[in-house]
Amino acid sequence: MKGNVIVGQSGGPTSVINSSLAGVFKMAKAKGYNKVYGMRNGILGLLDERYVDLSEYLQNDLDIEILRRTPGAFLGTCRFKLPNIDADKELYENVFAILDKLNIKCFIYIGGNDSMDTINKLAKYAAANGKKQRFVGCPKTIDNDLVLNDHTPGFGSAAKYIATSVKEIIIDSLGMSYKKKNIVVVEIMGRNAGWLTAASALSKGEDCEGPDMIYLPETVFDMDKFNAKVEKLLSQKDIVVVAISEGIKLADGRYVTELGNDNAYVDAFGHKQLTGTATYLANTLAAKFGCKTRAVEFSTLQRSAAHMASKVDMDEAMMVGEAAIKIADEGSTGMMVAIERVSNEPYQSTYAIHEIDKVANGERTIPREWINEEGDYVTEEFITYAKPLIEGEFYPYIVNGIPRHLVIK
Amino acid sequence: MKGNVIVGQSGGPTSVINSSLAGVFKMAKAKGYNKVYGMRNGILGLLDERYVDLSEYLQNDLDIEILRRTPGAFLGTCRFKLPNIDADKELYENVFAILDKLNIKCFIYIGGNDSMDTINKLAKYAAANGKKQRFVGCPKTIDNDLVLNDHTPGFGSAAKYIATSVKEIIIDSLGMSYKKKNIVVVEIMGRNAGWLTAASALSKGEDCEGPDMIYLPETVFDMDKFNAKVEKLLSQKDIVVVAISEGIKLADGRYVTELGNDNAYVDAFGHKQLTGTATYLANTLAAKFGCKTRAVEFSTLQRSAAHMASKVDMDEAMMVGEAAIKIADEGSTGMMVAIERVSNEPYQSTYAIHEIDKVANGERTIPREWINEEGDYVTEEFITYAKPLIEGEFYPYIVNGIPRHLVIK
Repeated sequence: MKGNVIVGQSGGPTSVINSSLAGVFKMAKAKGYNKVYGMRNGILGLLDERYVDLSEYLQNDLDIEILRRTPGAFLGTCRFKLPNIDADKELYENVFAILDKLNIKCFIYIGGNDSMDTINKLAKYAAANGKKQRFVGCPKTIDNDLVLNDHTPGFGSAAKYIATSVKEIIIDSLGMSYKKKNIVVVEIMGRNAGWLTAASALSKGEDCEGPDMIYLPETVFDMDKFNAKVEKLLSQKDIVVVAISEGIKLADGRYVTELGNDNAYVDAFGHKQLTGTATYLANTLAAKFGCKTRAVEFSTLQRSAAHMASKVDMDEAMMVGEAAIKIADEGSTGMMVAIERVSNEPYQSTYAIHEIDKVANGERTIPREWINEEGDYVTEEFITYAKPLIEGEFYPYIVNGIPRHLVIK
Repeated sequence: MKGNVIVGQSGGPTSVINSSLAGVFKMAKAKGYNKVYGMRNGILGLLDERYVDLSEYLQNDLDIEILRRTPGAFLGTCRFKLPNIDADKELYENVFAILDKLNIKCFIYIGGNDSMDTINKLAKYAAANGKKQRFVGCPKTIDNDLVLNDHTPGFGSAAKYIATSVKEIIIDSLGMSYKKKNIVVVEIMGRNAGWLTAASALSKGEDCEGPDMIYLPETVFDMDKFNAKVEKLLSQKDIVVVAISEGIKLADGRYVTELGNDNAYVDAFGHKQLTGTATYLANTLAAKFGCKTRAVEFSTLQRSAAHMASKVDMDEAMMVGEAAIKIADEGSTGMMVAIERVSNEPYQSTYAIHEIDKVANGERTIPREWINEEGDYVTEEFITYAKPLIEGEFYPYIVNGIPRHLVIK
């Protein structure tokens, strides 16, 4: 026997994170590995020796297809940054003792920046200590901010949900605009990278104008210019729709949301919890222009609305999961699988392999030239880039009127 | 020639309001009427002589199918309550002058309580003044609060979207709950009737526990009992999910949202604009229990997420649109078409006809016996009632990765 595989999921889930898990499982079985273990709640759960044998849950192809259509992290995730090896050698010894005990040959971690950091450290520890396990990272983040990836699994489905929902909100608003002005401010996830907010532009087409303005964290948010633009638009049309990233910042570096909320909650990584930017802006616009305003936040639906997943995204997520096992099986370690675009028309992609050293803790934001000069919309280059990624549907299996999911009980 | 028909839409849109419009159009053509006019923005637009000839937009069966899949009000709506006849006779004279000029035989108004009031007044004026037009109301409201209807078109699709989204949010949350407590408060539309919030219980099934608590406007919200229940649940599980109606009220009659926001905006009907109940509760729970909390509001997506429409709802919406023309053609006026349930298993429905006098300004709330004694969940009776209404999918036509809609440009 070739031994066993273990796979974990980390960070915020996506609509397709379980499609990558399905890819890992299928390819591990195809390559002849014995057991495929799943860590419960990532490396943190593994340290508590919490894991499952995935074969217990994936007994046939239908189970695998339902897993792919299940949002959230099937195995559970954690938000945990491994300490440096020197800082807590015992922790690393514990991890490898468990891996040895389970006869693990390949360790696959599906996640974003922090997860790639985990793979990097574990691979380095293994190399320095004569350990034979191979460590491969599998990309995942709706934020689309992992370097060396053309795009990341999870982004396309979130973008499709956002484009669809923004369009539905605009169409809804238009019908209610007689003889009164309305402003809708839609807040979309993205702390430093505006990819998801930019995707709201994909709502634009023959039957919809799309949002009037799009503000991203990549450019400075100027409140005076913003108000002036809204005022101008209100003089031309009844409905003004603005899409903003949760992470938009003022020239002095403060988040816009901080203007309305001085006591922002800070998470374990030191990230400020940003919510309420749209509410703050909607309230100030209502006061300034005396019209009705509405703040809309998609909240966790952006990453969990698997019912509106993109087929392209779903298939690429599976592909990188399969590729992670394939390259680990062939001897790679300390590597990340990435998505590479082969061509735009027709759209084609494949996977690439990168040393994880070059990935960990980098952050890929929208190129400045893909944002217009005024910093309030995206250019055609962005549309050309993003459009193929929301193509195709991957509808859920509906039971009793709602999507069926696979869960660990 | 039989003359012409005019149809309008009023109030808040639903995912299926245009399916009723399609039904009116198809049946009017089938019955041999010449033109089918659509008022732009309801009676208010009609007074400004704003209308369209629907044949310009509905040139073939594909157009009709795309119309059915379009959220928002295709014709635009208004929120306008007709004055009493004695109070503004000139307004009524103006309406009927336009109807006479357009050779209108049937006037169909698709809407909720306020729209039925409009039909009632116009029919009364016609009867008192020897006018021959027939006035029929076609029900529509996601709120499901129209009396004499088993349920209203729009409710089923909103319920399906809510059940699906609540489920996705719960599945997403479960994956992220390792070694920390989380509370999610989901706020759902419903000022006085809790039907939509109750529909969150439909997320419960073999693969999901559903929300832990459901609070409706039909019962008094007791903050102390609520906190005690949350505390108890937190001691038993990591994720606590609460669904609340925007309209939940304290024993003294104040809306819960007023506790956090004294300056609620009041609309033209004197309705207080309620938002922020979930945010208020999430903030107070975070402070009380020191854990992470999240407020989620579905906002206008509840009524506009046509991409997750219910087939049963979509078909019933078309049926009542067709029936409205049919009964007007047969001589009815001052009537409302309603949906009547014929049987539950298998689910079957038909339309009924009611005098609009008995409908206008009534409000149908959830029977107290369909809510548990503690007032924090619904009973099996509600599930049995609501489950058939979210059955079946009616997927959009996807173009360039997003749903295609029909719009007036």
